[in-house]
Parts: sequence; C-alpha cells; structure tokens
Amino acid sequence: MVIVDNAVYVAGRRTADPENLDETFEVMRARAGFAWIGLYRPGPDELDAVSKEFDLPPLAVEDALAGHQRAKIEKYGSSTFLALRPARYIDADERVEFGELHVFLGLDYVITVRHAESPDLAQVRKRLENDPALLAKGPLAVLYAVLDQIVDEYSPVINGLENDIDEIEDQLFNGDQEVSKRIYQLSREVMAFQRATHPLSDILETLRDALAEHDADTQLRDNLRDVHDHVLRIVERADSFRQLLQNALMVHTTLVGQDQNNEIKKISSWAAILFTPTLVGTIYGMNFEYMPELHWLLGYPFALALMLGLGFALYKIFKRRGWL
Amino acid sequence: MVIVDNAVYVAGRRTADPENLDETFEVMRARAGFAWIGLYRPGPDELDAVSKEFDLPPLAVEDALAGHQRAKIEKYGSSTFLALRPARYIDADERVEFGELHVFLGLDYVITVRHAESPDLAQVRKRLENDPALLAKGPLAVLYAVLDQIVDEYSPVINGLENDIDEIEDQLFNGDQEVSKRIYQLSREVMAFQRATHPLSDILETLRDALAEHDADTQLRDNLRDVHDHVLRIVERADSFRQLLQNALMVHTTLVGQDQNNEIKKISSWAAILFTPTLVGTIYGMNFEYMPELHWLLGYPFALALMLGLGFALYKIFKRRGWL
Amino acid sequence: MVIVDNAVYVAGRRTADPENLDETFEVMRARAGFAWIGLYRPGPDELDAVSKEFDLPPLAVEDALAGHQRAKIEKYGSSTFLALRPARYIDADERVEFGELHVFLGLDYVITVRHAESPDLAQVRKRLENDPALLAKGPLAVLYAVLDQIVDEYSPVINGLENDIDEIEDQLFNGDQEVSKRIYQLSREVMAFQRATHPLSDILETLRDALAEHDADTQLRDNLRDVHDHVLRIVERADSFRQLLQNALMVHTTLVGQDQNNEIKKISSWAAILFTPTLVGTIYGMNFEYMPELHWLLGYPFALALMLGLGFALYKIFKRRGWL
Amino acid sequence: MVIVDNAVYVAGRRTADPENLDETFEVMRARAGFAWIGLYRPGPDELDAVSKEFDLPPLAVEDALAGHQRAKIEKYGSSTFLALRPARYIDADERVEFGELHVFLGLDYVITVRHAESPDLAQVRKRLENDPALLAKGPLAVLYAVLDQIVDEYSPVINGLENDIDEIEDQLFNGDQEVSKRIYQLSREVMAFQRATHPLSDILETLRDALAEHDADTQLRDNLRDVHDHVLRIVERADSFRQLLQNALMVHTTLVGQDQNNEIKKISSWAAILFTPTLVGTIYGMNFEYMPELHWLLGYPFALALMLGLGFALYKIFKRRGWL
Amino acid sequence: MVIVDNAVYVAGRRTADPENLDETFEVMRARAGFAWIGLYRPGPDELDAVSKEFDLPPLAVEDALAGHQRAKIEKYGSSTFLALRPARYIDADERVEFGELHVFLGLDYVITVRHAESPDLAQVRKRLENDPALLAKGPLAVLYAVLDQIVDEYSPVINGLENDIDEIEDQLFNGDQEVSKRIYQLSREVMAFQRATHPLSDILETLRDALAEHDADTQLRDNLRDVHDHVLRIVERADSFRQLLQNALMVHTTLVGQDQNNEIKKISSWAAILFTPTLVGTIYGMNFEYMPELHWLLGYPFALALMLGLGFALYKIFKRRGWL
Repeated sequence: MVIVDNAVYVAGRRTADPENLDETFEVMRARAGFAWIGLYRPGPDELDAVSKEFDLPPLAVEDALAGHQRAKIEKYGSSTFLALRPARYIDADERVEFGELHVFLGLDYVITVRHAESPDLAQVRKRLENDPALLAKGPLAVLYAVLDQIVDEYSPVINGLENDIDEIEDQLFNGDQEVSKRIYQLSREVMAFQRATHPLSDILETLRDALAEHDADTQLRDNLRDVHDHVLRIVERADSFRQLLQNALMVHTTLVGQDQNNEIKKISSWAAILFTPTLVGTIYGMNFEYMPELHWLLGYPFALALMLGLGFALYKIFKRRGWL
Repeated sequence: MVIVDNAVYVAGRRTADPENLDETFEVMRARAGFAWIGLYRPGPDELDAVSKEFDLPPLAVEDALAGHQRAKIEKYGSSTFLALRPARYIDADERVEFGELHVFLGLDYVITVRHAESPDLAQVRKRLENDPALLAKGPLAVLYAVLDQIVDEYSPVINGLENDIDEIEDQLFNGDQEVSKRIYQLSREVMAFQRATHPLSDILETLRDALAEHDADTQLRDNLRDVHDHVLRIVERADSFRQLLQNALMVHTTLVGQDQNNEIKKISSWAAILFTPTLVGTIYGMNFEYMPELHWLLGYPFALALMLGLGFALYKIFKRRGWL
Repeated sequence: MVIVDNAVYVAGRRTADPENLDETFEVMRARAGFAWIGLYRPGPDELDAVSKEFDLPPLAVEDALAGHQRAKIEKYGSSTFLALRPARYIDADERVEFGELHVFLGLDYVITVRHAESPDLAQVRKRLENDPALLAKGPLAVLYAVLDQIVDEYSPVINGLENDIDEIEDQLFNGDQEVSKRIYQLSREVMAFQRATHPLSDILETLRDALAEHDADTQLRDNLRDVHDHVLRIVERADSFRQLLQNALMVHTTLVGQDQNNEIKKISSWAAILFTPTLVGTIYGMNFEYMPELHWLLGYPFALALMLGLGFALYKIFKRRGWL
Repeated sequence: MVIVDNAVYVAGRRTADPENLDETFEVMRARAGFAWIGLYRPGPDELDAVSKEFDLPPLAVEDALAGHQRAKIEKYGSSTFLALRPARYIDADERVEFGELHVFLGLDYVITVRHAESPDLAQVRKRLENDPALLAKGPLAVLYAVLDQIVDEYSPVINGLENDIDEIEDQLFNGDQEVSKRIYQLSREVMAFQRATHPLSDILETLRDALAEHDADTQLRDNLRDVHDHVLRIVERADSFRQLLQNALMVHTTLVGQDQNNEIKKISSWAAILFTPTLVGTIYGMNFEYMPELHWLLGYPFALALMLGLGFALYKIFKRRGWL
Repeated sequence: MVIVDNAVYVAGRRTADPENLDETFEVMRARAGFAWIGLYRPGPDELDAVSKEFDLPPLAVEDALAGHQRAKIEKYGSSTFLALRPARYIDADERVEFGELHVFLGLDYVITVRHAESPDLAQVRKRLENDPALLAKGPLAVLYAVLDQIVDEYSPVINGLENDIDEIEDQLFNGDQEVSKRIYQLSREVMAFQRATHPLSDILETLRDALAEHDADTQLRDNLRDVHDHVLRIVERADSFRQLLQNALMVHTTLVGQDQNNEIKKISSWAAILFTPTLVGTIYGMNFEYMPELHWLLGYPFALALMLGLGFALYKIFKRRGWL
C-alpha cells in the first residue's frame, strides 16, 4: 500500500477524505484547507503522479527516489524539501539502523514519504488530529510533529548506546578480550549516528530562522526550539560517547600491557618453582666418588624433601610478593 | 514541603508573606513589588497551580517536570526560563553529582524549582535580604545571586577533581596498577562536568547581551561579568584536567612497557643465576672414565663451591648492570 | 588530437561546427551563441592560440600549463578559471588516481582542458546536447554539467575506499599482520582524496553566491545546490573513513598486544609440559645408593608413564584454563 | 612596605612626591597630572583606602584581593581593571612560577598591585621616567610599559622550556627511563604557561581596538602592536612545545617496545649459549653400555672443548646477526 | 658589503645609480621615480642611516635589527614593514634552514634587508628589470616579486620533506629501528616549516584586501592571488606531512609489537628444538637397573638419532606454522 493516508484538513479538523490523489488537490482548494498525504516506499510512477498534481520540485523528487541522502533542508521557490534520518537501535546486533523520511512542504500541502518502518507517522497523525489548535497552523505544524517524533525516537538509540558503553566498561576492567572489537564496532555505530543527527541541528536552525523572519506563530517557534534543544542534547551525548570509546580503546591498550606484566611474573614464578628440584636432582646426579649423601640410608627421601621444600619456599616467596 | 518559601519584595525588602500562592499574585500586584517563590521537587499538580497563577510558558513547565535538561536559557515572550546544573563533588566515590535547578523569570516574579539539595538557595535568599539595594533591582538580581551561588559551588568540585589528579600522578609514577581504571573513571566525571558547565558560559553571554541591549543597571551587568569570568576560569580548569588525564593515560602505557622491560631483565638475571649450577652439575654427571675431579677427596665440595661461586659472580655482574 | 571538440551552440542547439579555432570566435559572435571547446593535453603553443583568440587571463593559462594545481576558482575580470581534480579508484593498487581538469569560463565561451582520461566529458556533452533547455542557459550550464560529472565520478572512489575499509576490518580481527601497512597506505589515499575534494565545497559555495547575487536562473542554482549537497556527502564520508582508519590503527596496536599475551601463555604451557618429564628424568638420574624404584623390574616403564602422565595432566590443566 | 612608590607626573615628568595617599589625589588634580601608585601585597584595609580615594570599582577591588584570577581586562565606566600573570622559570625544579599583577587604570591615575617579586616594576618606572615623551601620554603609557615588561619576562621562560625539551630529546634517544615522567611534568608546566599567556592576546586586541576607536596616539598603538606581536610569538612557541612533548611521549612508547625487542634477543642469545653445554653434558651423562667417547683417555677434555666450542660458535652467530 | 644594490627606477626602467644613500633620496624625488635599496646584514649604524633618510618607523627598524621575528606585516602610517621567513632544505641533515628577510615599503621606496643567502634577490631584481611594465607599478611590484621568489623557494623544501617521508615509509615497513628518531626529528622540521609558512597566508590576505580597497592595479592583485594560491598549496602539503608522520609513528608502535610477537615465536621454537634432545638425554641418564636400550649395541647411536629426529620434526612443524 503506497498511499498510507490522504486527508484534507480544514481549521485543524479532518474533512471527508478525497477518493484519490487527483481529487485531493481540488478538494483542498475548494475547502481552503491543506492536504497531508502519507506515502510508503512509492515507486517512480507513483511519486511522479503526486509530483505532477502538487508541482513538486523535480530535483527534490529525484532525491526522494534515489534515497541515501544526508539529512538536509532545501527551499525550491514556495516549496521546501526535507530529507530526514530516523534511527532505530537493534539491540541484538548492537547496531543503529537508519531509515529515511522525505517531506515535501508547500503552502497548502505536506507530503511525507517514508522508506522504513520508523518513524511511526500514524501516531504523529493521531496526536495532531487530537490537537486541532496545533493542526490548524497548517503544514508547518505537521513538520514540527514529524521532527518531534523523529527526535523522540533517537532517545532509545542514545540509551541503547549508553547501555553498551556501560557493558563495555565492565568488560574492559574484567579483562574480556573481545572488548576491543566491540569498542571498534560501537564507535562505528556512534559515528554513523553522529553523521545522521548532526545536520538536524542546522536544519532546525534554518527552520527557526525562517519562522522568525516571517514573524510566524510564536507557539510553533517555541515548539521547534524545544525540538532543537532535544537534538542538541542528543548530539552532545553522542559526542561524549565517541570520546568515552576513544578513551576505552586507549585504556585497553594499557590494560593488555599490564596483563602481560602480570602473566610474565606468574609464569616466571612457576618456572623457578619447577626448576629448583631439577637443580637438586642434577647435583645428586653427579658422579663424585666421595659424596656422603649418596650413601645415606635416607638420602633419596632427603633429596625429595629438599626438592619439595625449596619449591614450597619459592612458592611462598612469590605469593608474598604478589607474583602468584 | 513543596513550597519552601513564598515572599513578596517591595523596594528590596520583604513584606508580609502571602498566605498561599493564590494570594501571592494579588499581593505582589497590590504592593507593586515582585514575588520570589521557592519550590522543591513539585509534582505536576503543584507546578500546574503556580503556572496558572503566573501564566508560565507551558513548554518550559514541561521541561521543568521532565528534568534531565541541559543547562539552557529560553525566552518566552516577557518571561524567561533557565535550566541550570548545580554540581557537588562526592569525595568517597570520586564522583560529581549533578542536580537540576529551574528558574522562571518574569517582570515581577521569579520562581525557583529545585530538584536536589544543592544549591543552597536559603543562603542566597538570606544574602539578598541582607542587601536590599541589590534585591531592589528585582527578579534579575535574584537570578544573578542564584547563578553566583551555583558557580561558587563549582569550586569545590574543581578542587576535588584536581586533588584526584594529584593522587593519580602519584599512583602513576609509583606503579600502581589500578591507576588506568581511575584515570578512565575520572575522565568520565570531568567530561560530565564539562558538559554541565560549558553551556553556562553561553547563558551568561546571552544574559549580558540582553542587559546591555536594555541599557540595564550597570551594577548587575558588572556582577554578571564577574560570574561569567568565574565560569570561564572553571571551564578552563576542567579543560586542562581532560588534557592532563589524557596525558596520564599515554604515560601509563609507556610506564607499563618500561616495567615489563625491567621485569624481564630481573627475571632473566635470576634464571641465569639459577641455571649456572645446573651446568656444573651436568658436567660432573657425565660418565667419562677419566675425569680426575670425580676422584678427588674434595671433588664434591669443590663442585658445590663452583656452583655457588658462579652464581654469586653472575649476581654481582647483573647487580652492577642494574638488572637486579 | 588536442582539440577534442569545437562547437558553437545557439539557443541550446549545436550549429554547424567551425572549421578551426580562428573561425570559432567569429561564428560564435555572428550567431550570438556560445562556444564550447574541448582540449586534451594541449601544449604551450596550442593553448596560446586559444588564449589569444578568447583573450584568456595569462596567469590562468600559466596555471593550466603548469598543472598540479589545487582545486580552485578564480575570477579574472569577466572570465573565470577553475582547476578541478577528478579522481578514479584503481582497485588493483588500492590507489586513488587524480586527474586535472581546467575550465575557462567567459560570457560566451567555455573551454575545458583535460589532462587525464577522466572525467568523461564526451558524455557530458552528449547529455547536454540532449537537453537543449539546459544548454540554452549558456556556459554556466556546461560548468554545472562538468562539475556534476566530476562529483558523480567520486562515488566509485568512495565505494572503493569503503570496500577496502571493510576488508581491513576483516583482516584486523582475523589477525592478519599486513593490516597495519594497508591501513597506513589507505589513510594516505584517503588524505589525498580529502585534499582533492575538500576545496570543491568552497568552490561550489562561491559559484552559488555569485549566481544568487546576479539573481540568476533558479534551475541552475538548484542544480548547483544538488551538486554541492553531493560533494558534502562525499566529504563527510571521506572524513569518517579517516576516523575509522585511525581507530583501526589504535585497535590493531591493542590486538597485537593481546596476541602476544595469548602466545606467551601457549608457549609457557608447552614449556611446562615439556619440562616436567625432564624433572622426573633428573630425579631417577640421581646416584643414591638406596633408591628402591631403580631396582624395580618395571621401574623404567613406570618412570616413562610418570613422565607422560604428568605431561598429559598439565596439558589438561592448561587446556581447561584456556591457555592452549 | 605596601606603598612602593607614589608619584604624580605632569607632562611626562615626576613632580614633588605627595606625602601620603590622601594628598596624591589633590596634588594630581591641582597639577593636572596623573598619579602612579605602586602597591605590593596590600591588605584589605590598605586597598580599601586607595579604592576610596580613587573611587575604584568594588568588584575589581574584590578580585584584586581574592587573587588567582585568570588574565583579563574589564571596563567599569571610565576605569579599567587588568589582571595579569607574570611568569618566572625556576630552573632547579623545571617549574614555571606564576605571579599576579593587578592594574587599575583611570583617566588620571594608574595603580599597580603586585603580588610577587616579578615583574620588575621599578625598572619599568625608571625606563618611563627616562622617556618623558612617552610618559606624557599618561596612564596608558604606563600600562604599555608594564605589559611590555611582563611579556619580555616571558622570554626566559620560553627559553627555559625549550632547553628542557632539548634535554628531553637527548634523554629520549639515549634510553633514559626517567624521561616519561619528565615529559609529563613539563607538559603540565607548558599547559599552565599556555593558560597564563593565551588570554593576553585577547587583552591586547581589546586594548588596541579601544585605542583605534578613540583615534588615540599612533605611537602607543604601534607600541601595543609590538607587544601583541611578541605575545603571539610566545603563544606559538608554547603551542609547538606542547606538540613536541606529545610527539616525544608517543616516540617513547615505541622506543620502550623497541628496547624490549632488543633485550629479548640478547637474553635469548645468552640463554642458547648457556644451554648448549648442558645438552653436551646431558648426552655424556647417558648410561649406555657402549659409548666409545666415555672410554677415551681424552673424552672429558674433548667434551669440555665441545661445550666451549659450541658456545663460542653460537656467540659468533648471534653477534653477526646483531642480537648481541 | 652592506649595500648590495641601490637603484632608482623611473617608469619601470633603471636610471643612473645614485652615488650613495644620501643622494638616493634626492634623485628619487627629482626624477619622480622610486628607489629600491638592497641591504645585506646591516649593522645598527647602517640601518640607522637609511632609516633617517627614508624616515622608517623606529619600531620596525628595531624589529629588523633584533631579528627572529615571526612572518608579519605591519602598517606604520604610509609605510609598511614585512618580516618574511625564506627557507632552504639542507638535505645532508634533513633540516630546514630558515632565513629572515625584512622589507620596508613606502610610496616611493622599497628597502629589502636580507639576513641569509636566500632568497636570491639578485635574480628578483633581474627578473623585474626585464619586465619594465611590471616594475613601473612601483614598490608593490617589487614586494610581489620578492614574495613570489620566497614562495617559489619553498617548493624544494616541500619536495625534500616529501622525499624524506617516502624514505621513512620504506624504513618503516622494512623494520629499520632508527625510524622513530627520524620521524620525530622530521616532525620537528615540518612543524617549524608550518610555523614559518602559515602566517604568510594571512599576510597575503592583508595585502590583497589592501589592494582591493584601493582599487589597485588588477594585474598586481591577480599576481598576489597567484602567490597566495601557491602558499595555500604549500601549507596544505605541510599539514598533510604532519598527519602522515603522526600516522607513521602510530604504525611504528604497532610494528614494533608485531616484531616482538614474531621474535618470541621464533625464539620459542628454537628453545623447543634445543630442549628436546635434553629430554632424551635425561631419560637415558636415569639409573634404572632394567633399561633394555642401555644394553643395546647401537643404543647410543639410537639415542643420538632420536635426538636429531625429534629436533628435526619440531623444526618442520614450526616451519609449517610460520613460526620460523
């Protein structure tokens, strides 16, 4: 189902739905309202149809079809195009999955083109339809609500990443060998997340400046500032994750060296303990004619006791020095 | 107790306290003074009541309820909202604990919403009530005093962190193995502290610009510059802590490698000392028919002396070369 | 063949080709169109001829002859000179090969001087000749199309680099020793690519500003914004490659240390397993008069069994502790 | 002695000194000159007295009393307050010692408050009194001379630090183990020096801007530019020290690893040389019935010769391979 | 010879040379031309003489005498002072040698004060005298030509540094131990070169801005842009050298660790090969009454064969696993 929803809003309330896209345009003009069309993974033909009806900017339509855009905002005459990057945290793989959402914004229409499950635009629509005062402010209100949803959905990503970092810290100081691979891979995810969220701050600034210029509705501006603030907090957290992971990598190098020191001490201790009896054995293996111990009745047990005794003494010494 | 204090000030002096919040508003208007209401962890209902009385901006109220804001300043029409991050140093855990303080500032009211023990607002109030000239400047004077208190309370944090860094340096050069973990964790605290204090500099700039624009009272502007200067000093110190800890981490990696070099030398020396007698023993364990020493009366003591002598000679040699 | 193509366009359509360069200028003026001359590795004389005909700025001509310019845009009176750095990825050597393309842009001419196979300007010309509406916009349309082609040709470079990074990650965690050399060399390539692409963003900004100032054609401006956006994405990717490779280098240092730890454990285990029989042998090589085992009928097999048994027991112990 | 000097200058020449501070103010007004009062570690009361006489800004006075300010410049109405950080290099400890100097600057007075031995203000006064043309320009001339002195006194610090870095480089490549501690500590000093000198560049810019605005005396402006230039050179040097020390730290890690490689080779070589005779001894310690060598008259010397020979051969081999 | 050349140019052509400096000034005024005086390491007296004649700014003269300036441009009324840092690459020491060149620029004079062999100003003069059109533009044309020469002389430095980096890369991957020292020292040279060249970009910007403001000759502006572009390329290359050397340092640390891993494997292999015969010898050195092999006629050769066989088998095993 390509067209997820197709509604015309007048004064913040949903009016009878148009039967098809062709009708939407007329209805919207007739009722002096605005249209909000939700598309899901449209093909070139389908997007083309909408584009013709609403006279969308061709370059923006191309971008929407091509996908893999960085988050951006672009003005084409009276219409605006936004590419946004919603994100989801996949806990099983410790991976951040990025979706893509394109928004065409005109004076009397807003078209949302979703390419992934997230963000949950049905919920955005429900929230707005329950708040006619906000929805009455037109397409920009929809844009605000969409941005708010996307940024809200970043929070679980941030929490997921933070949780992994906590686990990594535990692994790190417990000597888990796999931790450097995990740090590397999580760094990669954090960097991708930074790339996705960083431009959003500029986008919101652009939007806020545009609103300020047109002396637009104060509530919308305050709302956008709120979203902006949320974005900044997320960007800041992601930055601190990068630094923590960088530190963790450096600490790990040191810990690996320290582990080695400890192991070398342990191994050397055991080598000494094992070797001492050999020395005793070698001495009593000498072929001197006059070696009294060799003729003792208890020479052999004495030698064995000497071996064990020296070994045990060394063990005690190393234990006390913390080498074992 | 949610409402910690609720007073109306006229010309810098406290007048008879209103009986409840409803009355505050009237009293304040009647007496042409300003109200300062101090709240402590208010619930949604309580904050709602105040909000209605003073017509606080809803988004700001939401932020105050949600908490976990980054330090920020936001203007809503004639009222201003600040989120601030007081900090306390918990020496026992070497942790920085962050509180949260929200300030609603209007033309004739200031509402402080505290979520943690710090900062000590009672003391701020006392200080101001003892300085009617300053308090007479209205809500901005209160804001200044609150900021001053918060920034003053950062000093012990900075001192605590510096103290830890001094200890870390001692540990570092005394070969304490735990130091890398401690460096990592302290870096984390410093980074959190940087995140909390860094935005304060922008907030103070915004406030100073606003005051400069309105050609406001010079004393207040000088006071804010003073606080600003203090913040800059703290931010600078925190930055230098980060760099010192980063350096300490790098030095530690090197020291661990150096330790290993020293240990390998020591262990090898002892291995050689232990091994030489074995060589002697092996030689006199050979079964040649004609080995004069084997038939000496003092052959055995001679061999033992040779063993000890060689071992001791090696010990001396290694000692002189600094390997032991 | 130095002159690859030499055409005069009027209203977006190719008119009868001039017979030689001398004629081009007259024809172009006569028909009120613009000339697009494509040169391939011209010598000083040939470039000089063109330069005289079109009054090209001498310093720019010098640059075009000297080569090895950084990407730049320079205005000389009414004419503009661009040095551009197309790139190709040579998969066999994991190397990025940089070409050089110089563009002289006047009000009624555009001269492209190519020094390498890439970019494929024949294709650019074909594309433009198939789009007369765009070509009718004059020399700037040609410049746009050339920039678009160059930036499009960066994409395979980015993909090639990303592919190498993926391979490097596999090598890294599979313990391939060659990986540090490869990381170093790929970093070098990425840095060269960054140097080549980075100035392009400024160039496009300069162009867009110039167009905005002259209130030029909206379509061209939107087109250039599109190219600009593409450049930004490429620059961003290249930046992230640098960071990933940097991280990979750090991780590699740690992994090398970890490998060593594991090997030392393994080697020490085998040393212990090998050494224990020697201890047994040494004991039964002692010359005590009273050593019952020496007289047992099965003393020798017993000793061998003891050797094997102890060795096997140690093997099991080390295996269980993960040292082997 | 708190008041080091207390003079009134008219047209660049020192007039009869006032008897005490109370008189200074009157004398200065009477003679239409300006006062220059030099204080050394004044207590609160003493500073208070001066402050009352010259109406100094209270917040600045507080700062001057509290000390531990970062270098800064602050305007209070017609008077200006500067906190400056002179520095001295203590060669014995390889430490940079920071003083503190506060300057109150009015239209007709300049008050210098010194808290450490440096800078040598007596010399500044002498220099100025010998240059009446300069001194006639008033308090700003004094400020310039003070700044000049402070910045000149930074040069020996820079030289001291550079000298230490040269020594560190020698230590580094001579394998001195103490070098990492020294690098760490010198980095710390360099960072403190950067913190002290860095703000001076902004202070000089502020001063130069203020002078440019008031279209002030060209000579003073040129003089301040000269000081500014000197500060920039010092800041640049200090930055390069930081980078050199950072590099030295990295190189040291590598050198420590390299040392270890060399030692392991050396130790292994000696182990092999020592072990070979043991193998020979073990062979001739076997109890086979038919071993011809055992019955040779010169069997024993032959074995010893074999031992020595093999050891010497190995020694030669390792020597040639550069392991010894 | 302090005065290298002393000429007056009118309309781009050299006129009869004045007999001495005193005359230069008059001649220059009389002929309405400009003077170009070339000095080489002048003493205070000589510079003083020139300074008096041309009324040079005293602070600039002081700087020219003191030397060790950073590259800078300073305007003093109608005259301008430049300190420039020419550089030469000394291949033998892999060192960059910095000279110093001071230029005093007035409306009708240019005085160049050289303190080192480079740059080759005689060549600059020859070039200009061969290009009267350029020289006719006056002192600024001389300045341009001097800057052009200095920047041209940076190219061999860049090439020398690049060549060293190529050699360092070879050393690095061939395991040359000296490479870390070389990297450190070359980094130091690169940093010094960056310090020398970096300010030149700002100087050229200042010059170009000044020319643009005065709507000066277009050719000179284009020429300076050309020099500026060259400087940018050099600065960019030097930056990339720094990064490459940094990377090389990191890679070296890893390679040293890897070398160690390989050596430990090799050494351990040989230890095992050497040790196995010892085990065999120890077994046949046991004193059991019933050991059939001891009584075999070929027992001894059998044991020797066993020793060699086991050693050879181990050698093969380690060889196959790549440890040898």
